[in-house]
Amino acid sequence: MSILDLTKTCTDTQARAGELKTGHGIVPTPVFCPVGSQATVKTLTAEEVKSLGFKMILCNNYHLYLRPGIETVEELDGLHRFMNWDGAILTDSGGYQVFSLSPLIELSDEGVVFRSHLDGSRHFITPESATLFQEKLGADIIMVLDECVHIDADYDKVEKAMEHTHLWAKRCLDAHKRPAQSLFAIVQGGVFPDLRRRSAEYLTSLDFPGYALGGLSLGEAKEVTYNIIEETVSHLPKDKPCYLMGVGAPEDIVEGVSRGIDIFDCVLPTRVARNGALFTPSGRINIGNSGYKKKDVPVDSSCDCYTCKNHSAAYIHHLFDAKELLAYRLATIHNLRFMNNLMSDIRQAILDGKFASFKSDFLNNYKPTNEEVRIEQKKKWIEVRHPKEG
Amino acid sequence: MSILDLTKTCTDTQARAGELKTGHGIVPTPVFCPVGSQATVKTLTAEEVKSLGFKMILCNNYHLYLRPGIETVEELDGLHRFMNWDGAILTDSGGYQVFSLSPLIELSDEGVVFRSHLDGSRHFITPESATLFQEKLGADIIMVLDECVHIDADYDKVEKAMEHTHLWAKRCLDAHKRPAQSLFAIVQGGVFPDLRRRSAEYLTSLDFPGYALGGLSLGEAKEVTYNIIEETVSHLPKDKPCYLMGVGAPEDIVEGVSRGIDIFDCVLPTRVARNGALFTPSGRINIGNSGYKKKDVPVDSSCDCYTCKNHSAAYIHHLFDAKELLAYRLATIHNLRFMNNLMSDIRQAILDGKFASFKSDFLNNYKPTNEEVRIEQKKKWIEVRHPKEG
Repeated sequence: MSILDLTKTCTDTQARAGELKTGHGIVPTPVFCPVGSQATVKTLTAEEVKSLGFKMILCNNYHLYLRPGIETVEELDGLHRFMNWDGAILTDSGGYQVFSLSPLIELSDEGVVFRSHLDGSRHFITPESATLFQEKLGADIIMVLDECVHIDADYDKVEKAMEHTHLWAKRCLDAHKRPAQSLFAIVQGGVFPDLRRRSAEYLTSLDFPGYALGGLSLGEAKEVTYNIIEETVSHLPKDKPCYLMGVGAPEDIVEGVSRGIDIFDCVLPTRVARNGALFTPSGRINIGNSGYKKKDVPVDSSCDCYTCKNHSAAYIHHLFDAKELLAYRLATIHNLRFMNNLMSDIRQAILDGKFASFKSDFLNNYKPTNEEVRIEQKKKWIEVRHPKEG
Repeated sequence: MSILDLTKTCTDTQARAGELKTGHGIVPTPVFCPVGSQATVKTLTAEEVKSLGFKMILCNNYHLYLRPGIETVEELDGLHRFMNWDGAILTDSGGYQVFSLSPLIELSDEGVVFRSHLDGSRHFITPESATLFQEKLGADIIMVLDECVHIDADYDKVEKAMEHTHLWAKRCLDAHKRPAQSLFAIVQGGVFPDLRRRSAEYLTSLDFPGYALGGLSLGEAKEVTYNIIEETVSHLPKDKPCYLMGVGAPEDIVEGVSRGIDIFDCVLPTRVARNGALFTPSGRINIGNSGYKKKDVPVDSSCDCYTCKNHSAAYIHHLFDAKELLAYRLATIHNLRFMNNLMSDIRQAILDGKFASFKSDFLNNYKPTNEEVRIEQKKKWIEVRHPKEG
């Protein structure tokens, strides 16, 4: 029995609407999960995240392992209670963070040795420990440990990393003891369609309750991302949830849904908010621009968020100008509400059998900020170290 | 007719309870005003400040003059609407900031030339412009421009500054055009009782609707502060509000009320919150201490604030440890709620005729953090420049 009940599937696209069953409530899909790596969606209380309409968030095993520590969260009765969030939680295994944030890596079939990006201390993580730690955190959906490679890695490197990921996925599955927490596999294979197919087929043979696509939207051309999603999804079981990791630009979400993705997460909406980039139906605006200094209207007058209902663009501009902490919070509220409304609109369009025209209308209006996205992603990936061989 | 209705005056102390009438509602006194220098009480929305129980906040003419600019706020229909706060607002003239934050000062009878601490630009402020700017901001209570001196200034310097303050007070009064906004005088005179008396007597002769005590709690011994308050208040009209500027440590508030103070403001509760110092009935605790890492109880189990009702000390400790923005906000909520509850308790004790025993109980339980307070105040005053003569 699948954890995803499909309510409606489009006939002209791969888009589908459903309900994801978790130990902390039903999550309507397609869904975007805000990121709260360190047990907090930055600047917001759990109550606010809930009031923005979200029913599932993402936390991070790597960050929580380092701080406050898995044992601490476990002693405090798990992540839900620790952060006072009674909705669903998805934790990433930390594979991505180990390969992108930690300054030194020794990789073997057994696992990964890495140094903490906080204090340089040495740590060893295995598929088994990554699984156990996530079980202890108590997330509703947990992820296998995967090996992530740089966007520029060649075919051989990507293939080798994929094979590690397969080996580790099997070991995570064997180590997984708490079926109430759903363990998802991660399809790797970079931008190579044949590797993606092999990865999807192998992992499908292991019968996970859900499947994720890892290693995408990391700097490759958008068309490449979309093609890889299409190719990969076609080899995954239709009755199980499909999760596109680390993707959250509005245009990419619409394209992802159109190709059969059910779950998304990304720091983008919250991170760019703190830089003053606010989502509107016509694209991102930069509230720091001097044109907003005396603008006595909301950032987006069609928006129903707290920020737009209560404050002028001029006030938000002032708060950013003065580097006031309230700026980051009001911007985060706005962008997350935009994301939640986008997901609701997408879902309704699917249920109404009108997703194709919704997609076309949305993409006609929404001017993607490719350049900025690229720059930001590059900045993010500049930190990535190639795993030391051996 | 006074803007302060006195409801009850103690017989055994100078404490009194009243109602301050403003253009934005009645403010029960004694009252503590949270500081929102830049049109935001740091980390909080105006709605939250209100829900914490506050009816009056302080904003700053100096900060708002520099950013976003008086004209901008005026074009946006004034400070209340700009920051979405419908309670009362008190603005400081900026005298203190001009003398404490700006790197260069030329002082004359006419006014003060100062450099912006933001960009070094040169500005000239006079009693007339300080009054006009505050009128344009639209605060309910506005302050005269005063000259502030260093805590170590000698008698002659303090006397000279006091005389400037008197000259300017008269000119502010003459320039003041909007009686709906109450202009308060500021008594100066440092730690010299005879100067304080002269200042109080002269300013009282000018018949302002309210009087403030400036230049206290800046590093002098607490007993000196308390004695100067006592001396000064004795020369001020009993039927008018009395405001002790820049004082906000819980123990100092209780002592101030006991000596007849009606209004307080201070950055202390919000600033120390952002450093992890949280108020409890027994004194300040430092949530960063490792003892809180696994403490699965609220910061203060007797507290009714959002933070204590929803989160463990362990979670707040984690947020501070991880430098998460939510930490500063939850700590601010706690400290401000503590302040509001303290003021309510004080007022109720006065109304019940039990203030003297309340004071004694409070001071017996609350361990003041003299050392820290001193260090912080020194840090603040390290920035103070002596005015260049001429």
